[in-house]
Amino acid sequence: MDERVRVGILGCGHVGSALVRLIHDHADVIEARAGVPLEVARVAVNDLAKDRDLPLPSRCFTDDPAAVVDDPDVDIVVEVIGGIEPARRLIIDALMGGKPVVTANKELVATHGRELFETAEGAGVDILFEASVGGGIPLIRPLRESLAGDRIRRVMGIVNGTTNYILTGMTDLGSSFADALAEAQRLGFAESDPTADVEGFDAAAKAAIIASIAFGARVVASDVYREGITGITADDIASARDLGYVVKLLAIAEDYDSEIAVRVHPAMVPEHHPLASVRDAFNAVFIEGDAVGELMLYGRGAGGMPTASAVLGDLVDAAKNLVEGRKGATIGAMAPRPIRPIEQVESQFYLQMEVADRPGVLHAITGEFGDREVSVRSMRQRGIGDDARLIFVTHKAREADLRGAADAVSELEPVHRVGSVLRVIGEEE
Amino acid sequence: MDERVRVGILGCGHVGSALVRLIHDHADVIEARAGVPLEVARVAVNDLAKDRDLPLPSRCFTDDPAAVVDDPDVDIVVEVIGGIEPARRLIIDALMGGKPVVTANKELVATHGRELFETAEGAGVDILFEASVGGGIPLIRPLRESLAGDRIRRVMGIVNGTTNYILTGMTDLGSSFADALAEAQRLGFAESDPTADVEGFDAAAKAAIIASIAFGARVVASDVYREGITGITADDIASARDLGYVVKLLAIAEDYDSEIAVRVHPAMVPEHHPLASVRDAFNAVFIEGDAVGELMLYGRGAGGMPTASAVLGDLVDAAKNLVEGRKGATIGAMAPRPIRPIEQVESQFYLQMEVADRPGVLHAITGEFGDREVSVRSMRQRGIGDDARLIFVTHKAREADLRGAADAVSELEPVHRVGSVLRVIGEEE
Repeated sequence: MDERVRVGILGCGHVGSALVRLIHDHADVIEARAGVPLEVARVAVNDLAKDRDLPLPSRCFTDDPAAVVDDPDVDIVVEVIGGIEPARRLIIDALMGGKPVVTANKELVATHGRELFETAEGAGVDILFEASVGGGIPLIRPLRESLAGDRIRRVMGIVNGTTNYILTGMTDLGSSFADALAEAQRLGFAESDPTADVEGFDAAAKAAIIASIAFGARVVASDVYREGITGITADDIASARDLGYVVKLLAIAEDYDSEIAVRVHPAMVPEHHPLASVRDAFNAVFIEGDAVGELMLYGRGAGGMPTASAVLGDLVDAAKNLVEGRKGATIGAMAPRPIRPIEQVESQFYLQMEVADRPGVLHAITGEFGDREVSVRSMRQRGIGDDARLIFVTHKAREADLRGAADAVSELEPVHRVGSVLRVIGEEE
Repeated sequence: MDERVRVGILGCGHVGSALVRLIHDHADVIEARAGVPLEVARVAVNDLAKDRDLPLPSRCFTDDPAAVVDDPDVDIVVEVIGGIEPARRLIIDALMGGKPVVTANKELVATHGRELFETAEGAGVDILFEASVGGGIPLIRPLRESLAGDRIRRVMGIVNGTTNYILTGMTDLGSSFADALAEAQRLGFAESDPTADVEGFDAAAKAAIIASIAFGARVVASDVYREGITGITADDIASARDLGYVVKLLAIAEDYDSEIAVRVHPAMVPEHHPLASVRDAFNAVFIEGDAVGELMLYGRGAGGMPTASAVLGDLVDAAKNLVEGRKGATIGAMAPRPIRPIEQVESQFYLQMEVADRPGVLHAITGEFGDREVSVRSMRQRGIGDDARLIFVTHKAREADLRGAADAVSELEPVHRVGSVLRVIGEEE
């Protein structure tokens, strides 16, 4: 091989152009770490006419991504187009052509990961995807390498910056979801169509990747139970704060030996928990392992430069392996594992309800709880005129039991309505 | 090579015995990740007569560590004895004998790192030391691999669990340093001779390792400026809290291009900074890179199991490399870099002083500040009888200028005394 590694980049948006700049500006650091210089040989763009102000001659650009994959002058392919097709086809072609691939494509890895990993394995080349979860945060590598001898029991992550920004705004300013979303949109932290973020689809894809790597299990995005944050009210957040909690959208992957559970939903986190201090658009992943205990990795989960930093870490790895004529770690078997349905998952719960303020009401409610093995950890009452608001935090209970209890309670005559029901995480383990 | 990798362990204290148990209990996970089974072949102990309750036949134990290093049945050597000698000699012998070494020895890596790295390089075998800093927290691997293409500007760490436990106790309970230390000793979080922890020696060794890896620079423990926490009073902590800060012992490594600065000292950290939420005996390392932005790695910085988890991650790596007949990443050149003396380092400062409460005092004090280019960011005054306590937070100032200003102020007639002077970190950048 030539004494340099030539990189072809598919896509030249925020991440692709940040990557081109990093490879140029940090050439000395990169060569010291990789053992060879990296050179950007070809870049596939959408619009050849666009002025990009990148340190590359114009002959490097093409609007044909397949030409980058097939180019004999390209040793390694970086995919930062996003979406399923044509990214999937291009990556498969690169791997089959014996070229290692680095991708930041969370959607693709979360849905077609197995096909990509098996193709890479068959071709004997690397596929690396650190940037697909948590932007610049090193997560895949610690899970696969640093914790290689540990048994990971649970991973809980704040993996979507948009929703964390919105929830932080609601917490700091007491604003409604709609106002906080509008502010996030105004500042560029939320898309004009925020569905993928606020309904938890983005977090669910990342949860699938995390569960796959942490447990060596075959998990795809559609296996993930998902609730977004659109139903969270200013009142829930104020109430959480009164009780010493902060509301976060969490991606949670748990290993129960016989089954795994993977879910995304808002949760109340005790304010002293490390995840509670993750503010604004930052991401963090909290890992619990048998030996390592508790570990948290925190940083910028999105953005051109942080994501390009993660891509570049993978690129240096792939380049080193290529020069040494070896393949890095394989992803492993990714055995199918039974998924525990959300109804069977145990959590603590927070419930808020409005009731008539008269004797016997609490007794009737706790009776319905007790009948379904839902045990109350704490209760608070606040008078509101002739009515009262009751706030319960339960001990751990099965989701199905809690839902049954909430339904039964809402049928009781003195109960006007059962308001928010939120899971409480990180307290009773 | 045989289809297994045989491990020799030097030392069988908390970490060594936890490692033996992990290799036994997690055999399936380890084999899946390493590609081969790991087997503990020999363990060097101090006292052969001691009952250890480990899943190993008694013939595996010896009280001669050199016999483990020389044993042809040992493929990889793990050093968890600690201290300089005989650990240094044993590691050098193992490397020269072509055996990869995994060590958790912070003191040795911080003082003789260069000799160890050069010996490993010459022999073409791996030396790995993830466990030497931050216990179970993946730190060395993210710095060397995940951030391989980034330029790291600053690393700030809470890397000593004992002092963080003491400072958390002082913060929560308002107790004195002496009382919090006694409580930490009673609960086993501090040694009966706490000097290495409370005077910052332990943190300084870790700071040297962090600076070496983050900046590719040759830094030893004696290059590190060091102040401990014995001078921190309950009053400092209360005063910090009033101003919105938390007091932490930080290890700080900074790259100024022409020079680097490496220091350990207590600092006031804004309460919203991620490092402020690191409580009790937990450790965390906050990294700032050009591309990745801000990153924090948090977890258990000590303890048998977390440290053994980090050793095992390295061991799996070394075993994979051995089976593939290759050597992992080299540590790199470790060029000598000029060290910026503490007098030239810029920080924000907190100063507290007691003065006579009369007109003109503040004017005289700020005159001394201004003469030395120390600019005041905020000032608070509290009356105490006929006197007043003044609390200043400065903008960034050179250490030498601040010290000169503090000395000059303490000479002023109406100034009774200048109390604590503490650096403020994480606010003005």
